[in-house]
Amino acid sequence: MREAYIDQLDSIFADLSAIGRQVRTAVSQATTALMTGDAEIAERVISEDAAIDRARERVEEKAFDLLSLQQPVATDLRTLVAALRMVAELERMGDLSVHVAKVARLRVPAVAVPAEVRPTMTRMAEVAEDMVTRVVDVIAERDVEAAIALGRDDEVMDQLRRASFTQLLADDWPHGVEAAVDIALLGRYYERIADHAVSVANRVIFVVTGHKPTAVG
Amino acid sequence: MREAYIDQLDSIFADLSAIGRQVRTAVSQATTALMTGDAEIAERVISEDAAIDRARERVEEKAFDLLSLQQPVATDLRTLVAALRMVAELERMGDLSVHVAKVARLRVPAVAVPAEVRPTMTRMAEVAEDMVTRVVDVIAERDVEAAIALGRDDEVMDQLRRASFTQLLADDWPHGVEAAVDIALLGRYYERIADHAVSVANRVIFVVTGHKPTAVG
Repeated sequence: MREAYIDQLDSIFADLSAIGRQVRTAVSQATTALMTGDAEIAERVISEDAAIDRARERVEEKAFDLLSLQQPVATDLRTLVAALRMVAELERMGDLSVHVAKVARLRVPAVAVPAEVRPTMTRMAEVAEDMVTRVVDVIAERDVEAAIALGRDDEVMDQLRRASFTQLLADDWPHGVEAAVDIALLGRYYERIADHAVSVANRVIFVVTGHKPTAVG
Repeated sequence: MREAYIDQLDSIFADLSAIGRQVRTAVSQATTALMTGDAEIAERVISEDAAIDRARERVEEKAFDLLSLQQPVATDLRTLVAALRMVAELERMGDLSVHVAKVARLRVPAVAVPAEVRPTMTRMAEVAEDMVTRVVDVIAERDVEAAIALGRDDEVMDQLRRASFTQLLADDWPHGVEAAVDIALLGRYYERIADHAVSVANRVIFVVTGHKPTAVG
């Protein structure tokens, strides 16, 4: 019984990891759409989000079955509940990638991000994608060290967001209100992707160690 | 056993309703701080968010105890898992109120929202607060009709958000980039509060009817 249970739990964590990879693709493609003004790639991110939603539902059903049939307690129960939360956060990261893709699509054939903000915005996108990449490994390996390291990257994202604000609020900002609003919202989306990555990593720390890092959202 | 279980489940729903009321206060006070530039009220929203976080933790612990000790299955299990999700969403609505309060605080003694956008922004805040007020009742009464009605209000919020964008993207927008960015982000925060209210209402529908409305996030 216990062995079958462990197998099923492992299978759920493998699913979470797979969803994380889908999210990474979504973040990466949304960024490409954003930086190149490619409508086709933007559409792909938007339409493929349904696959992430379905994958989430499958994980939820698996977790419910396990809760119902195996009646886990203590650590096993907390692990399963944590898995349910992680899948909700991963799905939300997919939604945020869709938001990025929609900003890109709205400005096609132009590019939403003006040249002088591109280095900062590209860095934000890279940090977000890197955090998603690493959280996939954190889940797959239940790697506490890597999860703790991920939490520190959140500060990098904060700094980048502040830098982008400094640029668009400068007196000599030449691109008007629309571009500024796009950048503020895009910054918010990438920051939220990063927040969720940290939160998922913190849940893995909790599952492995039984201790809740303070930053679990 | 079953009776004690029902009592404990009712107590969790009463807690959720109480947290909803705390969130409503947070949304209401954040809006007051925003529209009047009152730093003290903004600080209060920010500092009182810790109470919402603690209330969430207490509900989580209660739910875990119930899952561990009573080993619910089927409907009872789904209800408890739904409660865990609802409390996470309510807490997030508190966080979003803090974001509104922080924008208010950043602009003190000025007011972040210029006069001509105030009617729209005030409506957004009112709609958000009204949705929180109603979701408190939806939880307390497990009222499916009211929950369904709540879902329809989400469209009103979308319309208001588009109206605010039309204003700040108009050629004759006189308030510069900073005010526009504030309004875009504030609109996003109120919209997310509304989204979460709908999502909580949808979970109540699921708990009562066993059917998942499509908009459950």
